[in-house]
Amino acid sequence: MRRNYDLDSVLDVAAAEFNRRGYDGTSMGDLAHALGISKSSIYHHVSSKEALLGLALDRALTALFAVLEETGSRHGRARDRLEHVLRRSVEVLDAELPFVTLLLRVRGNTHTERDALERRREFDRRVTGLVTRAIEEGDLRADLDPALVTRLLFGTVNSLVEWYRPDLGAGDEVADTLIAVMLGGLERP
Amino acid sequence: MRRNYDLDSVLDVAAAEFNRRGYDGTSMGDLAHALGISKSSIYHHVSSKEALLGLALDRALTALFAVLEETGSRHGRARDRLEHVLRRSVEVLDAELPFVTLLLRVRGNTHTERDALERRREFDRRVTGLVTRAIEEGDLRADLDPALVTRLLFGTVNSLVEWYRPDLGAGDEVADTLIAVMLGGLERP
Repeated sequence: MRRNYDLDSVLDVAAAEFNRRGYDGTSMGDLAHALGISKSSIYHHVSSKEALLGLALDRALTALFAVLEETGSRHGRARDRLEHVLRRSVEVLDAELPFVTLLLRVRGNTHTERDALERRREFDRRVTGLVTRAIEEGDLRADLDPALVTRLLFGTVNSLVEWYRPDLGAGDEVADTLIAVMLGGLERP
Repeated sequence: MRRNYDLDSVLDVAAAEFNRRGYDGTSMGDLAHALGISKSSIYHHVSSKEALLGLALDRALTALFAVLEETGSRHGRARDRLEHVLRRSVEVLDAELPFVTLLLRVRGNTHTERDALERRREFDRRVTGLVTRAIEEGDLRADLDPALVTRLLFGTVNSLVEWYRPDLGAGDEVADTLIAVMLGGLERP
């Protein structure tokens, strides 16, 4: 238990420092300083800075892919499954903000980053599949490109990392408004 | 004329390098190298790196504020003015992508950056005013918070900098789809 607890602490601090200084601009010495422990104590948990980045990105990706496996994402009409995925993605962003922020800033400079980008693309493909299915079921407009729609949907969700702060406690209102606008639109019926 | 031409070239390269290396990570020497001119040639145009950042941010902000002064943003129903502002903002992003990208990455570390953030907030306030007016005119749903709606609208527009490339030539389809989704919604009427 203690070892897992420590690794989680290391990951929390690593994600915060990577977001603040950039991955390239953060050394293992910086992380040791921020944690108040020695570099060798960090190497007790992970073999390298890139391994630490991999674990931090994996935390965000695992949470997002877990959403796709939930009952609400797998059963029912595709339009309702899409709503479930959008709402739960906002909740993952709320719960794992530093890790999701890190994931969204990845640019593909290392093998670890390219791997994370590929998993993001796989996530997008699965959501695009839901949009396509919802069009086939007659619930969503058929005149829009599903891949472009998915980019706009997740562009909106992902833009939350620029201003959303979990301590404001408005996560539900944000998710409700986002879903209302994207699915139903701003115009009065 | 020649002097203006040169300053524009310096600004183009400065925006590209600031986006690539980060503002803090870019020296005047890096810019001189990228331009193939001497540092003193740059100082012929601007007094400091921060002045260069200010001019680059001003280019994006001037283009965005000019949209608000256009006839389509000032006359007619607020809902139509909002649509005009959204469409033209996507066009500004397309035409001035490196400068808008730079603007969206500003974090407020210098006086110049804080000034740019204040002008972004003023832009958001004016768009929020349009959303509020459109609700009062009965064209948009009255059950959503106008400031939150504005954040989501521009979160979606701004997210385009993450993947949009002007050379793909799909700017109109992107703007059309964005407006269709945000105003009318994805659901089939």
